[in-house]
Amino acid sequence: MKTSLLAISAALLFFSFTKNPDYQEFYVKNISELNAAINSASPGDEIIMANGEWKDVQIKFVGYGTEEQPITLKAETAGKVFISGVSDLKLGGDYLVVSGLNFTSGYSPSDAVVEFAINKDTVANHSKLTNSVILDYNKPQKNQTDLWVLFHGRHNELEGCYIAGKANRGPTVRIDLAGNHSIKNYHKITNNYFGPRPPKGGPSAETIQLGNSYTSMAPSYTLVQHNFFDRCNGEVEVISSKTNFNEFRNNVFYKSEGSVVTRHGNYCIIDGNYFIGDKNSEQIGGVRLIGTGHWVTNNYFFDLKGDTFRSPLAIMNGIKKSPLNRYIQVTDVVVAYNSYINCSPWQFSVGSNVDQKDILPASEIRSERPIRTIVANNLIYNDKGVEQVVIAHDSLDGIDFESNIINNQGVSFDKISGIEAEDFSISELEENVWIPSADVSSPELYNGFEFDLIKKDLFGNSREEKNEVGAVVGKPVKNLNLMDVSQYGPDWYSPNSANDYAPKTYSVSSTSKLVSTLQKAKNGDTIVLTSSKYKLKTSLKIDKMLTIRSADVNNKAIIQYNGAPGTPAFEMNPKGKLTLKGVYLIGAKDQYAFASLKENMSSLYNLTVVDSEISNFDYVLKAYKHSFSEYIKFKSTSIKNCANGLEISEETDDRGEYSAENIFIENCQFENVGKNVVDYYRGGYDESTVGGNLVVTNSTFENCGANEEDGILLNTYGIINVDLSGNKFLDNPVKFVARLWGAKNNTHANNEIKNSGELIVEENLPLKLMY
Amino acid sequence: MKTSLLAISAALLFFSFTKNPDYQEFYVKNISELNAAINSASPGDEIIMANGEWKDVQIKFVGYGTEEQPITLKAETAGKVFISGVSDLKLGGDYLVVSGLNFTSGYSPSDAVVEFAINKDTVANHSKLTNSVILDYNKPQKNQTDLWVLFHGRHNELEGCYIAGKANRGPTVRIDLAGNHSIKNYHKITNNYFGPRPPKGGPSAETIQLGNSYTSMAPSYTLVQHNFFDRCNGEVEVISSKTNFNEFRNNVFYKSEGSVVTRHGNYCIIDGNYFIGDKNSEQIGGVRLIGTGHWVTNNYFFDLKGDTFRSPLAIMNGIKKSPLNRYIQVTDVVVAYNSYINCSPWQFSVGSNVDQKDILPASEIRSERPIRTIVANNLIYNDKGVEQVVIAHDSLDGIDFESNIINNQGVSFDKISGIEAEDFSISELEENVWIPSADVSSPELYNGFEFDLIKKDLFGNSREEKNEVGAVVGKPVKNLNLMDVSQYGPDWYSPNSANDYAPKTYSVSSTSKLVSTLQKAKNGDTIVLTSSKYKLKTSLKIDKMLTIRSADVNNKAIIQYNGAPGTPAFEMNPKGKLTLKGVYLIGAKDQYAFASLKENMSSLYNLTVVDSEISNFDYVLKAYKHSFSEYIKFKSTSIKNCANGLEISEETDDRGEYSAENIFIENCQFENVGKNVVDYYRGGYDESTVGGNLVVTNSTFENCGANEEDGILLNTYGIINVDLSGNKFLDNPVKFVARLWGAKNNTHANNEIKNSGELIVEENLPLKLMY
Repeated sequence: MKTSLLAISAALLFFSFTKNPDYQEFYVKNISELNAAINSASPGDEIIMANGEWKDVQIKFVGYGTEEQPITLKAETAGKVFISGVSDLKLGGDYLVVSGLNFTSGYSPSDAVVEFAINKDTVANHSKLTNSVILDYNKPQKNQTDLWVLFHGRHNELEGCYIAGKANRGPTVRIDLAGNHSIKNYHKITNNYFGPRPPKGGPSAETIQLGNSYTSMAPSYTLVQHNFFDRCNGEVEVISSKTNFNEFRNNVFYKSEGSVVTRHGNYCIIDGNYFIGDKNSEQIGGVRLIGTGHWVTNNYFFDLKGDTFRSPLAIMNGIKKSPLNRYIQVTDVVVAYNSYINCSPWQFSVGSNVDQKDILPASEIRSERPIRTIVANNLIYNDKGVEQVVIAHDSLDGIDFESNIINNQGVSFDKISGIEAEDFSISELEENVWIPSADVSSPELYNGFEFDLIKKDLFGNSREEKNEVGAVVGKPVKNLNLMDVSQYGPDWYSPNSANDYAPKTYSVSSTSKLVSTLQKAKNGDTIVLTSSKYKLKTSLKIDKMLTIRSADVNNKAIIQYNGAPGTPAFEMNPKGKLTLKGVYLIGAKDQYAFASLKENMSSLYNLTVVDSEISNFDYVLKAYKHSFSEYIKFKSTSIKNCANGLEISEETDDRGEYSAENIFIENCQFENVGKNVVDYYRGGYDESTVGGNLVVTNSTFENCGANEEDGILLNTYGIINVDLSGNKFLDNPVKFVARLWGAKNNTHANNEIKNSGELIVEENLPLKLMY
Repeated sequence: MKTSLLAISAALLFFSFTKNPDYQEFYVKNISELNAAINSASPGDEIIMANGEWKDVQIKFVGYGTEEQPITLKAETAGKVFISGVSDLKLGGDYLVVSGLNFTSGYSPSDAVVEFAINKDTVANHSKLTNSVILDYNKPQKNQTDLWVLFHGRHNELEGCYIAGKANRGPTVRIDLAGNHSIKNYHKITNNYFGPRPPKGGPSAETIQLGNSYTSMAPSYTLVQHNFFDRCNGEVEVISSKTNFNEFRNNVFYKSEGSVVTRHGNYCIIDGNYFIGDKNSEQIGGVRLIGTGHWVTNNYFFDLKGDTFRSPLAIMNGIKKSPLNRYIQVTDVVVAYNSYINCSPWQFSVGSNVDQKDILPASEIRSERPIRTIVANNLIYNDKGVEQVVIAHDSLDGIDFESNIINNQGVSFDKISGIEAEDFSISELEENVWIPSADVSSPELYNGFEFDLIKKDLFGNSREEKNEVGAVVGKPVKNLNLMDVSQYGPDWYSPNSANDYAPKTYSVSSTSKLVSTLQKAKNGDTIVLTSSKYKLKTSLKIDKMLTIRSADVNNKAIIQYNGAPGTPAFEMNPKGKLTLKGVYLIGAKDQYAFASLKENMSSLYNLTVVDSEISNFDYVLKAYKHSFSEYIKFKSTSIKNCANGLEISEETDDRGEYSAENIFIENCQFENVGKNVVDYYRGGYDESTVGGNLVVTNSTFENCGANEEDGILLNTYGIINVDLSGNKFLDNPVKFVARLWGAKNNTHANNEIKNSGELIVEENLPLKLMY
């Protein structure tokens, strides 16, 4: 176990027991032996699952251990028991421990992979899942919902696990609070490694969700402590706290494209966490607050460049007399003793939409600004001075700024009483961690109500003798090693071991060689096309990361696809990540160049096409419903003589879903594309969906859209971020080049439009209300 | 102090201190001496207010005592320090005690009579008001809002006080939770006597309100224990709990026309209370539940005959995704081990208005029925069997009935699994308290989640060794003496002492004698008219309870009023309660027979007219805005030749207010009344206003309404309870006799209508939404 000493001690304290000398060990080799053992097990007993693959098993682990003598279900060798296929694990009873399992190559047949309940009446209490892995255990299709760890009951733990790759709908981990037996739960989620979760393209992809709006009045008291969140990019909320009295302490949020959000519920504590961003990403957020009585203290925010919902500190406006599932006003919140190093500005009254009161119903208008809110004793350091250190979307009259200091490099900024310029320097303690070089000659610290309860700093140093603004009052006693991820998750699993493979390059000189090589190639390999022409009659299945390129980009190989009508040359499967470079890709009129699977897209695909030419297809790209791509990139590529272009618009349920996170079209030529030149759609009024992203630059569109029924060349309805710039639109017989959304981040610049209709911007688009 | 031994012990424990030998006593005779003493006082000191009247004083008691050495402000003799006039008391600091004050003959200039704060920043903590009285301390007018005791801060107490007579807008006692310094307050309201609070005629007249919807997410932990609520009739909620984790224990609710309501907030405990009703009143309620996680246990309900909102047990339907200030769905509620003796049926899904979904906005539709709710181990005894023991306004599928028993006298009732007929008898333990005569051979008790925490019964007997259905498992160890109200409130005050006066009867033979006698008469006296005629030029001021009657009802005296136009013969002042009997009351065309004051009706008036004749007035009764009457009764009386009848319709703000609680017209003759024959109005869609009440029976209306502009003879718009029966309507030139409200309790029967328009019933009346 790579848990910290503290956590080990806590665990020992909790589960320490003197072994019953009569305790039994059950060694089981299959599900029926396992079931029999579960039926027989008494407090103190251990059930040991034989190493190997356990396929299509539904384990119901029911037992009643005691605090001193829990009942344990564990792998013969941790990590060597593979739970695969259509499998799940449910626990019911008291003091159960599950350890060392490896959930992989499968998915749950139920609503959860691991659930702390057998049914609604039999929940587990005082039980835990530890030292286990759940990896890519996705339902076949994105829209099929499940949870990977679902808590019910009380005093359960998820500890020392690695969990990554969830692509289907549903939070990765969820605390359920329906029923009195699941309130005041004191669950613990500690020392886990939450590995990358790709963006889902729509809501319901949190990494941890605590309750929901219908149980938002419940006292929860869940502790989320000392976990590593590595690029948890599922949606705008990495953690969505929806109940009361939850605590988030000492976690590391590393380049995770979202925020810790107190979405519903109140009186949560966010203390001593590290939020590590990326200078080059505006997607990585910090803490976003809704509701009452939260305390945000001793946190460290670094290189967070997010805006509005993803600001390092986003305090929202509420809805007047908010419906249960919408936005409660912020009141009685305290943000104190945090450090913001090279972050974008704090934002207040985020989500204010009073200007839309004529368009939206009153129950959607976030007009209630934060009140009785204290922002005090925080430290800001900007390596580049900014003019605005606070962005206020409404009046700040409900915010009490006290004794905050900022080094803004001497640049003068909007004057706000309680945020004072100060000259101090910072130095690097270790990678990603910067602290003041010396004690800051701060103003008198603000001593608010119960501020005396903030006894320690980010590193655990006492604030009682010597106190300072910001998250730290001194150096840590021992090395932090913040980025040493071996501190988290199972002892037997290293998430980066897969990266040890050294990719290979294969040269293929014939169609059959291309097909066979494609099959045997491994993630990361490159296939070089050495012949001038490859004739394909069946689709190439792309289910791994591959590059296919011509040997000589100046002498492009031809791939001619003559498969069945409606089939693609390249079939993009889950986890298929294709880079196609320097190729003439030619269809026979009725085929598709690229398409996702029609169903069972259990994970995302990516597609990059560079320096190529695509022609004579029915569709260039067809993204079927419930498919998802994180990146679709066409660069320096010609697309001509196709009936359809990129159609990424099948998510028509208007639930905030969309089919691609990022689409880039750079320096491309579209010529004689009949319709759907770019058709990219997201529907539903959902202010928390902050994608997708379309960038079309320096490209030319000529004689396109002749068959376009809706008369729009580039259809981007509902897409939040659109940038059209430096393009030429020549002789396209359409009514509109594009119809952009003014209220969102849609921009256009330096486009030449000739005989191609208008490029218009509408401030508000009609959208279906989702809530 | 008449507090119980338990309470004394608790108080001693809490405030016990070893007196500082250096402590000072300040004896103060006026406000400046008091202020000086307050400024000088140190922990342990006592400030003693001299006996007498302290008029127009605003006391700011600021001090910082300690747990061992509080600072005390007390009366020289408890009860002999009268705080009168425009006065209030505010406390700020720690460990302050105020004792023995008598607030009377005045009103507060601020928002509270006694407030546990000086301003929003300086609150009181660990402080208390004890052994004091606040009586009739009403603002001049009903619509002027205040609280009589307003809590802020933490750990404050209202203990051993008598508080009665509040008639103006605003709860009597309120807990404020705005601001973190006022949450988790652990305030205590114990051993108080809440004397009668008259109906207000509209909302905002609770006896205790804990928070409001805007702070409904706050943890409150207020304890309301061992208080006596005597006819607290202000509105439909005696106690309105609007925050979380409040506890209501061991209180007596005596003939109080309302309920204990968990209006907002969740997880409250209502345990061991007595709800004493009245066979003859349908206004007295029990417990009404909204929200999540409340536990209602060990309560005793007796003779409660209320319906819907005022049912002995009313579990409401919620609104889907309810707005913050409306109705949250009931979930996870437990109702266990209660006894219902001779009560009306339990009601579920109270407030369901799905049938009005085409009329009301979705945010007003209470469609969400209770779920995950357990009703178990309760005992019902009906001395008269009923056919329906449960009234369900929607499906009961979310209610789990378990092991409830009922003696329904062998009458078969609607079969509900979990409510079983049982033959057992009850016997009277003492007045109003009936318990099973012998152990009930009950079914196996239901052992729900955490039912083991219900360790005691109503009387404090242990349930651990011997357990039973219902509130009691045995007799109390010592006598209860439930109705011995001397257990509550200050030791020096007896609320019933005013009743010791033996009323007198005066005979008056002249107008001047009538006027002078009226002035000197005391509450309850009778004035007998022995002459045949009294000529009045100025109004008779009625500001006490009086009867005025002819000496011989068969030989009625004439009171002829010839005062200024627009003035009344009888001017109904606050607390004026007039019975006029056997009199000819004659105006001179432009006068009013009866009218309230035009302003400053600080308390209610009542009017009863029997065996009389009223004629030749402009108005029979003019009820001005902000006046209020509990009873207006005309019996066996003729009303003729008046321009207007009873006009009680000035509350036109549509905030649920109305001007009279009960209007009875029995066996009367109305003849030639031009308009406003009866004009009685309540406006605003407010489902929690359950009045007013109009009964018109066996009366005749002839040639009335000729000048009625709206064409309605009896205008009852918005009045909830209307009964028109056995009347004759003859030759009234109007379009409608009445326009009744079908969805409410409006009925008509056996009326003879001749040449008088129609009597119509409309199911739904358009009303202004208030929330």
